[in-house]
Amino acid sequence: MEINLNKDERIDDLEYKNLKIIQNNNYFCFGMDSILLSDFAKNIKPNSTIVDLGTGTGIISILLSGKTKARKIYGIEIQKEMSDMAYKSIKLNNLEERVEIINEDIKNILKIFGKNSMDAVVTNPPYKEINRGIVNETENKIISRHEVRANLEDFIRISSEILKNYGEFYMVNRPERLADIIENLRKYGIEPKSIRFVYPKVDKEPKLILIKAVKNAKKFLKIEKPLIIYDEKSNYTDEIYQIYNKEKRK
Amino acid sequence: MEINLNKDERIDDLEYKNLKIIQNNNYFCFGMDSILLSDFAKNIKPNSTIVDLGTGTGIISILLSGKTKARKIYGIEIQKEMSDMAYKSIKLNNLEERVEIINEDIKNILKIFGKNSMDAVVTNPPYKEINRGIVNETENKIISRHEVRANLEDFIRISSEILKNYGEFYMVNRPERLADIIENLRKYGIEPKSIRFVYPKVDKEPKLILIKAVKNAKKFLKIEKPLIIYDEKSNYTDEIYQIYNKEKRK
Repeated sequence: MEINLNKDERIDDLEYKNLKIIQNNNYFCFGMDSILLSDFAKNIKPNSTIVDLGTGTGIISILLSGKTKARKIYGIEIQKEMSDMAYKSIKLNNLEERVEIINEDIKNILKIFGKNSMDAVVTNPPYKEINRGIVNETENKIISRHEVRANLEDFIRISSEILKNYGEFYMVNRPERLADIIENLRKYGIEPKSIRFVYPKVDKEPKLILIKAVKNAKKFLKIEKPLIIYDEKSNYTDEIYQIYNKEKRK
Repeated sequence: MEINLNKDERIDDLEYKNLKIIQNNNYFCFGMDSILLSDFAKNIKPNSTIVDLGTGTGIISILLSGKTKARKIYGIEIQKEMSDMAYKSIKLNNLEERVEIINEDIKNILKIFGKNSMDAVVTNPPYKEINRGIVNETENKIISRHEVRANLEDFIRISSEILKNYGEFYMVNRPERLADIIENLRKYGIEPKSIRFVYPKVDKEPKLILIKAVKNAKKFLKIEKPLIIYDEKSNYTDEIYQIYNKEKRK
């Protein structure tokens, strides 16, 4: 296998089904949010066609290739250097048949896929509204973290357009965006069905939310049991341990 | 003091600041939701004018008279028998100067108070949409629990009308109504600022949500740390113990 790593690129072992990923510290590196979202979305039906909006390093597309029996996963990434890295990671994992990385603005993907074409959308979008706390970040990290090129409403509107009827939408975001997320999901006809809050500890405020919504579904929202990261001794809880390293626990 | 109890009415001790309440098993009796909401709203500013929409037995108005330094609390109740009971409880507690019970449909209160008149609204509205699971309930219990006479949107629209600019809105409800609540708060210009989920145990789905929203406030929602009712031994957690019986713990 010929994978040419650029300067500052490195190969990290995902410690899950022997999957690997290429990252570069000069760019946005994946975090726990993407791991948790991939696990939250693991029940996407076999043979589904999934699109991962704003795939970055490709982490979610790569993990979903292992966690689901999806037929095809498209990872969309606007930044050329990121999508090149993601593409190399797909090659490194021999996933070219199931995962395709597309270097494109999410605002243009309707032309590629057409309306009502996808079984599921999975997305870890930029969390921060534009002009909220941009400090000393490189331009590409700003694009990954802030709503510079597309905002939350764009991500939800586009998801609604490309999802089939009853298609599933999975997103991770910050708790402070909950009202914006729900307002926009309702606006674009994707009904919130399940929300899980991720608390660092049982006595702390949540740092992340995981949300599942379904296009044109009946109204009934379930708030899931809390997902707690650390126990009282500051060790990972059993559930986090399982999400991170399923095989070892068996 | 002359309090004439009707048949089936009884006086319960709230075990908080010597407050008492009259209840009747043939009608809706207050639950933990009202206790938790009163505590969640306890930081309402001194000298505020508060309206308690759908006060029922008067429980929230009575507790808020102890937990806040509000100048005046109006408890609105559509059911004559309930409002009579609430009125007797106010007399029993010698709260006639600070708490007024009004037997009225919430849809008519704008005529009484006028627009932009209230510092805070506190409400424990019926949780269930009409025709969802009405089984073997007396008519007055149905009115307390189901959206027969006013629905969630009515409660929020009316709150928006009577609240002053930056007036505070406090509600308890079921988690499955979260999307409806947020959508309507945004629709009527009351910005969600704080939400707390009430989990029976740390590994269970929440049964209640507490929400604070502020009319015309800046967008920024904080999801609070979890409120957990029972510890692993099925005893009340310290926080619940404190909410239920603050004096004893001091």
